[in-house]
Amino acid sequence: MLSRSFHSIFIISLAVLTAGAVCAFADVQSADVFEFKAPTQAGEDAASGVRAALEQCRSKGIHRLAFAPGRYDFWPDRAQEKYLFVSNNDEGLKRIAFPLTGFEGMEIDGRGASFVFHGYIVPFLVENSRNVAIKNLSIDFARTFHSEGKVLAVTPDSVDLEISEEFPYAIRQGILIFTDGKNPLGPQTTVKSGEVLYPFGNLLAFDPVRRETAYMAKDRYGVQEGLTAREIGPRQVRLNLPKASTEPGNILVFGAAHRDIPGFIVSDSAKTLLENISIYHCGGMGVIAQRSSDIDLEKVRVTPAPGGRRIVSVTADATHFVNCTGKITLRGCLFENQKDDATNIHGLYARIVKIVAPDKMEVRMVHPQQFGLDFIRPGTRLEIVDGPSLENRGETVARTVERINKEITLVTTAAPLPVTVKEGNAVANADANTAEVLIENCVIRNNRARGILLGSRGKVTVVGNTFHTPGAAIMFEGDARFWFEQAGVRDVTIRDNTFDNCNFGVWGKACIEVASGIEKPCQKTSRYNHNITIENNLFRVFGPRGVLSIYSVDGVKFRNNRLERTHAYPPQREPAGDLCRAVDSDHIAIELPTEVSGVAEKAKGGFEKK
Amino acid sequence: MLSRSFHSIFIISLAVLTAGAVCAFADVQSADVFEFKAPTQAGEDAASGVRAALEQCRSKGIHRLAFAPGRYDFWPDRAQEKYLFVSNNDEGLKRIAFPLTGFEGMEIDGRGASFVFHGYIVPFLVENSRNVAIKNLSIDFARTFHSEGKVLAVTPDSVDLEISEEFPYAIRQGILIFTDGKNPLGPQTTVKSGEVLYPFGNLLAFDPVRRETAYMAKDRYGVQEGLTAREIGPRQVRLNLPKASTEPGNILVFGAAHRDIPGFIVSDSAKTLLENISIYHCGGMGVIAQRSSDIDLEKVRVTPAPGGRRIVSVTADATHFVNCTGKITLRGCLFENQKDDATNIHGLYARIVKIVAPDKMEVRMVHPQQFGLDFIRPGTRLEIVDGPSLENRGETVARTVERINKEITLVTTAAPLPVTVKEGNAVANADANTAEVLIENCVIRNNRARGILLGSRGKVTVVGNTFHTPGAAIMFEGDARFWFEQAGVRDVTIRDNTFDNCNFGVWGKACIEVASGIEKPCQKTSRYNHNITIENNLFRVFGPRGVLSIYSVDGVKFRNNRLERTHAYPPQREPAGDLCRAVDSDHIAIELPTEVSGVAEKAKGGFEKK
Repeated sequence: MLSRSFHSIFIISLAVLTAGAVCAFADVQSADVFEFKAPTQAGEDAASGVRAALEQCRSKGIHRLAFAPGRYDFWPDRAQEKYLFVSNNDEGLKRIAFPLTGFEGMEIDGRGASFVFHGYIVPFLVENSRNVAIKNLSIDFARTFHSEGKVLAVTPDSVDLEISEEFPYAIRQGILIFTDGKNPLGPQTTVKSGEVLYPFGNLLAFDPVRRETAYMAKDRYGVQEGLTAREIGPRQVRLNLPKASTEPGNILVFGAAHRDIPGFIVSDSAKTLLENISIYHCGGMGVIAQRSSDIDLEKVRVTPAPGGRRIVSVTADATHFVNCTGKITLRGCLFENQKDDATNIHGLYARIVKIVAPDKMEVRMVHPQQFGLDFIRPGTRLEIVDGPSLENRGETVARTVERINKEITLVTTAAPLPVTVKEGNAVANADANTAEVLIENCVIRNNRARGILLGSRGKVTVVGNTFHTPGAAIMFEGDARFWFEQAGVRDVTIRDNTFDNCNFGVWGKACIEVASGIEKPCQKTSRYNHNITIENNLFRVFGPRGVLSIYSVDGVKFRNNRLERTHAYPPQREPAGDLCRAVDSDHIAIELPTEVSGVAEKAKGGFEKK
Repeated sequence: MLSRSFHSIFIISLAVLTAGAVCAFADVQSADVFEFKAPTQAGEDAASGVRAALEQCRSKGIHRLAFAPGRYDFWPDRAQEKYLFVSNNDEGLKRIAFPLTGFEGMEIDGRGASFVFHGYIVPFLVENSRNVAIKNLSIDFARTFHSEGKVLAVTPDSVDLEISEEFPYAIRQGILIFTDGKNPLGPQTTVKSGEVLYPFGNLLAFDPVRRETAYMAKDRYGVQEGLTAREIGPRQVRLNLPKASTEPGNILVFGAAHRDIPGFIVSDSAKTLLENISIYHCGGMGVIAQRSSDIDLEKVRVTPAPGGRRIVSVTADATHFVNCTGKITLRGCLFENQKDDATNIHGLYARIVKIVAPDKMEVRMVHPQQFGLDFIRPGTRLEIVDGPSLENRGETVARTVERINKEITLVTTAAPLPVTVKEGNAVANADANTAEVLIENCVIRNNRARGILLGSRGKVTVVGNTFHTPGAAIMFEGDARFWFEQAGVRDVTIRDNTFDNCNFGVWGKACIEVASGIEKPCQKTSRYNHNITIENNLFRVFGPRGVLSIYSVDGVKFRNNRLERTHAYPPQREPAGDLCRAVDSDHIAIELPTEVSGVAEKAKGGFEKK
C-alpha cells in the first residue's frame, strides 16, 4: 500500500524528466519536483542547499526532491540541529542533513547519488511526518565512528596492530585515541579543545577472509576508559590488552563508544518507505524507527563500503523498531557486517518506582538509551507486568501525565491500580509494539551477535530469508530487568528460510532461540511468547548447537524442516545439546528435522562465502 | 535599588515570623511566604519538594520561599531539566534544583541552610526573570567535579600521589579515572553503562601550607585523554607524568574536564540579587550571568568547604558576566581557591565568515563555549572590528536574523555593510556589555590565574579590594582570535586597593596588565582600552614583575600609589622589568609609586595568610 501511494508521484516526475522540460542538474522547481543542483566542485558542502531545498518544497507544496547522480558531501557546520531522543541509540543535540520534520507526502530520490557525511551529522530524520519516501541513494562517512586494526601478533598481554590511514589515531600520554586526523584546534587551555574524536567502548575480532566475526570471538568490554599502547612501527601499535580474544590475521574492531549518529531516524511518523538504499556506515543504527506506523524497507542494504577497506558496516544494529504499529516490512534487504543485530522489534517497559496514591504512580525509564522516549499520554492503555517473571499483573488507563524529566513521569490512572500491581513492576503501552511484521527474502550475515529479534505483538512472518549469523538467527527476547524491551509474540510464522551455519560465535545457543529475561524460577509458569510456527526451513549446522531452544512459550509447531550437517567450522569443544529443546512450555509440537545432504541445497542458492 | 525593592518583602515576612503565626518548619503557605519543610530524615531528596514549592509560589503569587535552617540534599533524579547554553561553561541538557524561570519578584531565603548536591545537578537557574533574590545559604557537592591528590614523590617521569576518600578513583586497564565511588551499574554491554564519572582535563599544583597555587606552578594540559597509573599502596598511585610542575607536599589538582554544572546561572534576567551565599563547590563557574541587567552580589563567598579537606573551591571562575547591562555589583565578596579568575566581564564576538550579499552576512560563534549564545536580534546595533587589531571597522543594524544552528546565524542588515567590513572581521552587539561595574571591598586570592578581567564598556569602579593572585590582579583582555570575548573599557577607576604579593604564579606580567589579543604589529595603532585611572592603591611586591604593564591604551592616570617591597616568596630568576610599563599608548600620565615600609600598612588590615 505504501509503495502504491508513492507510485503516482514517481510517474509524474518520470514524465517530467523524459520530456526534457527541466534542466536536470540545476535547482529547478516545478509543481512536481525540485531538482537539486549537482555539486559544481568536489568537496562542496551540500547541507545548506538541502536545507533550503526542503524549505522550498515545504513552502511551495513540492512533494519530490530529486538529485542528479553523483557524489554529495555533507558537513555538520551548516546543518539544522535538534535535540533528539532516539531509542537504543544515544540522545543528544544533533546536526541533521535531511531534517524531514512535519512533511506530508515527500519523496527524496537520490537517483543513485552517493551521500558522504563528514563528522557528527545524522543523514536522515523523518519526524512527525506522513508518507515520506527516500530512495535510490547510498550513505557513507568519510571517517567511520568505529576503527579497525589488522592483528599482527598476539601475546598473553598484548596485541600488535597495523592501523590503516582510514582510521586516524594518536597515542597521547601512552593512551590510544582515534581522531579525525586533523590537528587539534588552537592552543590548549582550561576549556574543551573542539577536537573531533572517535572514542571506542568495546573490542571484537573479525575474520578478514570469511569477512565475518572471527570464529567464537568474544566481545571485550571494560575498555571505554581507554587502552594503553605504544608505537612499534609506521602505523603499528602495541596494545596492552591481556587475554585478547583474537589471533594474528584478524581485524580487531574498536566499537564506537556511543551511538550518536544513526543513519535514518524515523520518529512519530506514518507510512515511511526506504527503498534501494545502501547504508555503508553510520555511527549508530542504520535505521531506527520509534513510535511510528507503517515502515517499509525495500532493498535496503547495510553493508561495508565497497573497496574492502573496512570490515564493518554500521556500528550498531542494521535496523530497529520500537513501539511501532501498522506494518513493518523488510523485503529484499541485505544486512551484513554491522556491529549488532539485523533487527530488533520491541516495545518499551518503564519501572513503577513508586505507587504514590491508589491511582498515581511514579514511572521511570531505566535503560539510559530509552530516556526521553515518552510513551504514556492521557488515555494510553497500559499493561503492567512483574519484572522477574514478565507475567501480567493487570491493565490500567493513564488519566494525567506529568513528565518530570527524561527519566521520570508521574501518571495518574482513570481508576485505582489493580491490587496485583506492586512497586517494581514494569509498565508498557498496551497498544504500541503491535505492528504486523513481514521479513521476506532478506540476507542477514556476518554481523556481530544475532539476526532478528522478534518482539512485536502483531502477526509476524519471516519467509524466504537466508541467515548466517554468529549468534542465534532468530531470537525472542524481552525483559523488564536490564534492557526493558517489551516483547512477547502472539503469532509468528518462520517459513522457507535457510539457516546457513549459524552459531559460529558466542551469542546464542541455537538457530532459533528464546532468551527472554525471565528469572529461572519463574520460567516454569511464565508463558511470555505464544504461537510460533517453524516450517519448511533448511538448517545447515556444523556444530553441537541445536536448531531450536525455547522456554516459557505457549504454542510451538516445528515441522517439515530439513537439516544438513556441514563442516564449515572447526568442531566446538562444548558437548552437543539437544537439536530441538523446549522446556517449561505448553502446546509444543516438534517434528525433528529431516536430514538431507548438501549438494542439492547449494544448487538452490544457499549462502555462499564471498 | 535592587536591595530596596526586596526590602519590603523581607519586612513583611519578618513580621510574619516574629508574630509566630506560621508553623516555621512545615510546608505552610501564606500570601507572603512559602515555608519549606525541613527534611525529616538525613539523605532525603529535596528536589521534588523544591520543584513543587516553586510551582506553588508561581501559581499562588507567593513571592518568598524560605527554608528552615539545616541541611538539604538534592539529587538529579527528580529535578527538572532543560538544555542550557551557558557562556564560558559547557552546554547541555541539565538537571536544575531551583529552576527559577519566568519569575517576577521572587526571594529564596535559605536562613542559613546548607544545600548539598549529589552528582550532575545545577543548583540555581534564574532565567527570563525579574527581581529574583537568593540569600542566606551555602551550596556544596557531596563529590567534587575536580579531584585532588597529595604529592608524595616526584621523579622526572612520575608523580606519586595519595588520594583521599573524598575523591573516589579507579585504575582501569592501567588508566586512572575518577568516579563517584559507586559500583558501575549492571553487566557491561555494547551500550553505555550509566556509570557517573568525573573526568579531568588538566593538572595544577597547589601549596597546602599557603593554601594557594604552588609558587610558579604551571598548568599541565594535554591530559584530557587520560593518564596511566598504577597502585603503589592503599589509596596511593604512581602517575606516569613526565616533567610534572609540582613537588612533594603539594596538592595536585585534577581540573574538571568540563564545566557542566555552574553554581548560579543567571540568563536573560533583570535585577538579580545574590546575598550572603557561600559557594563551596560546583562543576563550572560559581556565578555566571549572561544577557542580563542589574546583577548584585553582596557577601558572596567562593571558598573551599570548611574542614580543610579540599584545596579548591569551584572548578572555574568564581563569577563571570557576559553581555550584561545595567549595573554589576560585587561587594564584600570573598573569591578564593577557585580554579580560574575571580571575575571576567566581557561581551561576545562572532566572526563574519561570509559576506553573502552587500546586506547579508553569515556569522559564526567560534569559541565552543559560546555556541548557542545568540546575541543578534532584528534591530540589534552591531559593532564590527578587525580581528587582529580590534580596530573599529564600522557599525550596522540587523534587519533579519536566521539562526541555522548553535554556531551559525544568517543576518541581513538595514543598510549595506560599510565597505570597510571584510570577511574575517568580528561582530559584537554594540549595546550589550555596557554594564556599570562596582567591585568594592572584596578579597580575591589564592585562585588559579588572574583576579578580575575588566571588559565592560560602562563605568567601572574597583575600590577597597584586596588582591593576592598568582597572576595579574586586574587584567584588560578581549580578542577576536581565540576567546572571542569583546572588551575594551571606556572608563575605569582603580582606587584604594591592596595588591598583596600578586604575581607569584605564571599568569601575568604585572599587578595591573593589558593582555588584549591584539597582534603585535597592530598594537602600535590600535587603542582598544580607554581612560584607566589607578590611584591611592598599595602595591606589595616581592619580585621582579611590575605593578603596571600596558599597551594600546588611550588614557591612563597612575598616581598617588604606594609600593612596599616584600620577601614573601623566593626571588624569581627572570630579570626585573619596568615597575610601570606603558607602550604604544596615548595620553599616559604615570607617577611612580611612593616606596613605603610594611609595618604601618599591615596594621591597616592587609592580606594575612591563613
